Amino acid sequence: MQFAGLIHFLDLAGTFVFALSGALIAAKKKMDILGMFVLAIVTAIGGGTLRSVLIGATPVPFLQDVSYLICCALATALVFGFSHQLGKFSKAILVFDAIGLGIFVSIGISIAFSKGLSNWASLLMGIITGSFGGVIRDVLTAEIPLIFQKEIYATACLIGGLLFLFLHSLELPSELVILLSAFLVCAVRLLALHFDLSLPKAFNPEN
Amino acid sequence: MQFAGLIHFLDLAGTFVFALSGALIAAKKKMDILGMFVLAIVTAIGGGTLRSVLIGATPVPFLQDVSYLICCALATALVFGFSHQLGKFSKAILVFDAIGLGIFVSIGISIAFSKGLSNWASLLMGIITGSFGGVIRDVLTAEIPLIFQKEIYATACLIGGLLFLFLHSLELPSELVILLSAFLVCAVRLLALHFDLSLPKAFNPEN
Amino acid sequence: MQFAGLIHFLDLAGTFVFALSGALIAAKKKMDILGMFVLAIVTAIGGGTLRSVLIGATPVPFLQDVSYLICCALATALVFGFSHQLGKFSKAILVFDAIGLGIFVSIGISIAFSKGLSNWASLLMGIITGSFGGVIRDVLTAEIPLIFQKEIYATACLIGGLLFLFLHSLELPSELVILLSAFLVCAVRLLALHFDLSLPKAFNPEN
Repeated sequence: MQFAGLIHFLDLAGTFVFALSGALIAAKKKMDILGMFVLAIVTAIGGGTLRSVLIGATPVPFLQDVSYLICCALATALVFGFSHQLGKFSKAILVFDAIGLGIFVSIGISIAFSKGLSNWASLLMGIITGSFGGVIRDVLTAEIPLIFQKEIYATACLIGGLLFLFLHSLELPSELVILLSAFLVCAVRLLALHFDLSLPKAFNPEN
Repeated sequence: MQFAGLIHFLDLAGTFVFALSGALIAAKKKMDILGMFVLAIVTAIGGGTLRSVLIGATPVPFLQDVSYLICCALATALVFGFSHQLGKFSKAILVFDAIGLGIFVSIGISIAFSKGLSNWASLLMGIITGSFGGVIRDVLTAEIPLIFQKEIYATACLIGGLLFLFLHSLELPSELVILLSAFLVCAVRLLALHFDLSLPKAFNPEN
Repeated sequence: MQFAGLIHFLDLAGTFVFALSGALIAAKKKMDILGMFVLAIVTAIGGGTLRSVLIGATPVPFLQDVSYLICCALATALVFGFSHQLGKFSKAILVFDAIGLGIFVSIGISIAFSKGLSNWASLLMGIITGSFGGVIRDVLTAEIPLIFQKEIYATACLIGGLLFLFLHSLELPSELVILLSAFLVCAVRLLALHFDLSLPKAFNPEN
C-alpha cells in the first residue's frame, strides 16, 4: 500500500515537471493555450504511454486515472500565468526535467519487471519511459530530438537503469532501488549539463 | 442495425474527406501518386487507429474492413485526376475537413464509451480521433501540426465533445447525440475559420 | 523448425542492414554514439513494431528476443569504427537497404497471415513492416520521409507483396514464397535506383 502510494506520488511528480517543460516549449513556439496543454500532455505521458502500448498494457494508464491530466492542466496554467517571468525559471526547469527523467526511468523499469519482462527489456522500457515523451515533444515541434543531438541524456537513463538492475539483483527493497536509481539518473544528467559533458561522435569527413 | 449503419456511413464519409485533405497536401508537396495514397491513408485513419491502439482495441479497425482503404483510394484518384483544378476546391476542402472533424470526434467518443471508458477519457479519445490524423499528416510532411499553431481546432473538438457528454447524460437517443455534437464541432470550426478566431497565447518576451 | 529458422535468420539479417542505414544517417547528422544506436534500433525495429502494435501482437517482438538489439549494436559499432571510410560504402548500403526491404515485406505479410488477417490487410502490414522503420527514422531526423518523395520505394513493396499473395494462393511452400517475393521487392527497388525510375506526380500549377 505504502509502496504503491510512493510510486503514484513519484509518477505524478514526474508528470508535472515534464508537463512544465512541454508547456514552456509550446509558449516559446507561440502556440495558443490549448496547444500548450496538448504539448504538455504529450510530453508528460508520451513515454509511459509508448511503454504501455509496446508491452500491451492497455487501456494506457492516463486513460484510467484523471490525476495525470490534472497535473498537466496545472502545469499549463502555471506556465500561462507566469509566462512573462519564464526566463527566470529556465534553470529550475532543467533541474525539474532531470528529476522527471530519473523518476520515469525507475518507474518504467519497475513496471516492466512487474509485467514479467526480462532484465534488458525492462531496462529498455525504462529508457523509453524516461526519454520518449521528450522525443515526441520535439518531433511535434519539428525539431531534431534533443536525445539525438548533444549532452548526456539517454546515457543518464542507461547508467541509472543499470544501477536499478544491479540493486534489484541484490534483492534490496523496491522503494530503495527506485529512489537510488532515480537519484543517479538525475545526478548524471545534472552533472553532464553543468560540466557540458558529451559522448564521442563518429568521425565525419564532411565536417 | 440502423444505428450501426449510420455510424459506419458517417465513419466512411469522414474517412473520405480526411483522405482528400491528405492527398491534396501530398500533391502540393510534389509527392508521387503512391505517396499521395499513403498520406491520404495516414491522415484518414491515423486518429482512429491511435485511439484503438491506446484503448487496446486491436487489430485496429482499418485492418478489418477494406471500405476505409477504398475510400482513401477514391479520394487519391480524385485529387490526382483533378489536380490541375485543385485551387478552385480549396475552400470546399476546408468545409469537408470540418465535417470530417465533427464526425470523427463524435464517433470517437461513442466508441470509447462502448469500451467502458469514463466520461473524460472518452472525451479525450474523441479529440484524439478527430485531430491526430492531421497531426500525423503534418509530422510526416515536416510541418508543425496545425493543431498547435493557430485557429480554433482542438477547441472545436472540445466544445462539441462537451455537448456530446451533456446530451448523453440526458439519455437522448445515440443517433441524435452523435449528429448534434458532430454538427457543433463542424460549426465552431467553420465559424472560427470565417471570423479568424483564435485562443489567447502566453505572453512571450521574445516577440 | 527449419522454416522458423529461415524466418529468424532473414529477420536478423534485415534488422542488421536497416540498423546500418540508421546508424549511418545518425553519423551524418553528427549524433553521438548512443544517438546512433537509438536511431539504428528505431530504423531496424520500427516497421515490425508498428505492425505488431496495429495487429495487437504484444509484447512486441524486440522485447522478447535480445538478438534484435545485438544486431543493432553490431551495426552501430561497425558504422562508428569505419566512419572515416563510410563514403566508400554508400552504394553497398543502398543494396543492403533494398535487401532489408525485401526481407521485411515478405516476413511482414507472412506474420500477418499467421495472425489470421485477410489478404489485403496482410499486404498492407508487409508494406508497413518494410517501409515504416525508414519513415520513423526520417521523422526523427526532421526530414520528409523518402517514401513520400521520390524513387520507387513503397511501389517495390507493393509489387513484391502482390507476388507473395499470388504465390501463396498457389499453395507453394512458404520458404519459396518468402524468398521469391523478397527477391522481387529487392530487384524492383535496385532497378528503380539504377534507372532512376519514379511514379507520376499530380500536376502542380505552382511548379
